[in-house]
Formats: sequence, structure tokens, C-alpha cells
Amino acid sequence: MNSFAMKKVAVILFDCFETLDVFGSVEIVGRLPEYFEIDYYSLEGGIKTSTQGVRIATKKTDSITGRIDVLLIPGGKGTRREVENDELIRVIARLSEQAEYTLTICTGSALLAKTNLLDGKTATSNKRAFDWVVSTNKEVHWKRKARWTVDEKYYTSSGISAGMDMTLGFVSDLLGLDTANRIAQEMEYEWNNDPENDLFEF
Amino acid sequence: MNSFAMKKVAVILFDCFETLDVFGSVEIVGRLPEYFEIDYYSLEGGIKTSTQGVRIATKKTDSITGRIDVLLIPGGKGTRREVENDELIRVIARLSEQAEYTLTICTGSALLAKTNLLDGKTATSNKRAFDWVVSTNKEVHWKRKARWTVDEKYYTSSGISAGMDMTLGFVSDLLGLDTANRIAQEMEYEWNNDPENDLFEF
Repeated sequence: MNSFAMKKVAVILFDCFETLDVFGSVEIVGRLPEYFEIDYYSLEGGIKTSTQGVRIATKKTDSITGRIDVLLIPGGKGTRREVENDELIRVIARLSEQAEYTLTICTGSALLAKTNLLDGKTATSNKRAFDWVVSTNKEVHWKRKARWTVDEKYYTSSGISAGMDMTLGFVSDLLGLDTANRIAQEMEYEWNNDPENDLFEF
Repeated sequence: MNSFAMKKVAVILFDCFETLDVFGSVEIVGRLPEYFEIDYYSLEGGIKTSTQGVRIATKKTDSITGRIDVLLIPGGKGTRREVENDELIRVIARLSEQAEYTLTICTGSALLAKTNLLDGKTATSNKRAFDWVVSTNKEVHWKRKARWTVDEKYYTSSGISAGMDMTLGFVSDLLGLDTANRIAQEMEYEWNNDPENDLFEF
């Protein structure tokens, strides 16, 4: 693993992001500080507040110099508003095109779908918001029964907690199953490591 | 449930708290803003940073006026240092004595154990740090095989992810199983709702 270059992870925040969408994944990649460096960004910079009231300081996306390796886009109630925010969608498109990987959690996939980068690709999203997410872009192959999906460089997860399963899957793909299993064990997390095993589809 | 008074939740932070210990529980109680109001405190106030680099603004514990209803104490690497912080332990003792409930996640139970409020009571903790936690106070009935424990007003959970199962159990005890099940469903979270079902005991 010595050839693995440190990857820059950018988490895109907006008001009313979902708390666990972000910090479930951050708990996992944050356990690998030798491989991942995490920063928080928003279009405007400043404090962004989750639906559950967690306040996080962000830098402006404009301040990003150089390439982001991993773009992480959470979901949450705020996505209903942000899908109409053309400037944010343009920034996500630019960062995601350059990034080696883009990961979305829950309705974060609606923001990525609006960039058209998912057109013709397989993706999933939160089950309770699924019909709305599908309506944002019908060119995506939306897969209703999936804990998470991987299509080329795009990882998309189902609702909230599914983001943890996907992020462990992402770690497994990059660094091996042993590393992902070790992290799940350290977290005492019962990892659902099968992207097809979705108990929440209806 | 109309007679349920709004409960003030105080999350006690320190540097090198564990990210998911805090935000797993916050995701859950934060979904019930009609019942719970969450604030973040530390002995010194100011920014406290998780082991995974999440920076959270805190108020000083000295600024607490009136009663805290629910005290939430996360674990993390920082607990190894904070068990020796007599001033913090005194503050936790005072707040916990007054509180209606105290919830600990992972090695947060070591901080609570140092107050002697758990003496003679059943508690659990992270499995990989278990022997160290036991060494901090041998008057506690430490239970190695438990996803979480409840003894009177004290809820203690096993490592990191177990805090989510415990917090859903806490919500179930206070507001009913239907409410806890609804939240787990909304989070697409496969709730391990059996405190005795511990896959990580060794």
C-alpha cells in the first residue's frame, strides 16, 4: 500500500444536510489519516447547519486549488432546495469531473444527477424520497433495491445509514477487504457488506 | 405523549472525542426536535476536535444554568487523558447527579465511572478498551457481553456504533417502540434492538 498517494476528500455542505450522512462516512475515512485528508466546503463558505442542528465551519468551494480526489455529497432536506441552485450544481459538476471518485449518500445523488454526470449510469438514493429523486433526472438508471451502487467512479448509497456501508465498501475497493473489516470491527459496526442486500426497498 | 416536557440534552465534548459516538446519537435525538434540545459543552468552552478532525463549537459547562435532563458522554482517545482531569470529572458528577438520564457511548463510561456514580451498577464499554475501562473503577459491575446496559437512570453502550442502538433503545423507553422503529426506518438503519445481542464480545 506504499504507492497509495494521500487523497484529498472534499465534503460539500449546505444548510439542512443530514448529520449522519456526513459523519458516518467521516468516522470511516477519518480512521485512515495516512490515506485521506478531509475538508468541508460550501458555495458561500461559513457555518452550515445540519437538520439536526450540528454547525460545521466550511471553506468556499472557490478556494479549492488543485484537484479534489474524492468528492462526498451528503443528502438531507436541504437537497430539495439545492437541486435548484444552478451555481452549486455547476461547482459540483466541475469538482466531480476532475475527481477520481464521487460518493453520494441518501438524496445527495439528486444533486449529482442534476449535473448530468450520472446520465446512463446506475445510481440509488433514499427510499422514502426515491420518486422525487427519480424526477430530478430520468436519464439515470435509478436502482430502487440497492444498499449502494458503484458505476465507474460514482458511488451512490441508499438512505442515511447506508452511507456507512457504502463508505466501507469504497475503503474495501481501494485498500482491501481486510482494512474495511478491521475498521468495521473497531467501530463495533455490523457492516452490511453486500450492496444488493437492501432491507428497506418497498 | 403531550405530557412529555422538552428535555435539554447536554453533550460533553473534549479533544479527541470519537465522531460517531456523538453524531450517531445526535442523528437520532435530533430527529425529535419537539422532545429534545441539544447543546454542546466542554470544561473550557471553544472548539473541540474529534479524533477524525470534526471541529465543534462548545459552551463552557460553567455557563449551564438550570437542570440538564439528559447528559450524553461520548468516548474516544481523549478519555484516556480526561479520566485524570479531576475538574471535568467533578463537573460530570454534578451534572449527572442532577440529570434525569445519563448516556455514555464507548469509553465515555470510564469518565462516568470515575465519578463513582456507577459504583454497584451495571455498565459496559468498548470491547477493545474494556480492560482499561475496568481498571478505572472496579466497583462497577462491568458487563463484557452487552450491546448496551440500562441501570436506573444510567445507559451505557459498547463501542462507537453501539451508541446508535442504545440511543434508539433510550427513545423506545421514553417515547415507545413505534417511535424508535420509525426513526430507524427513516434512517434506513438496521437497528440491533436487543441489548444482550453483542457480536463483538471476545
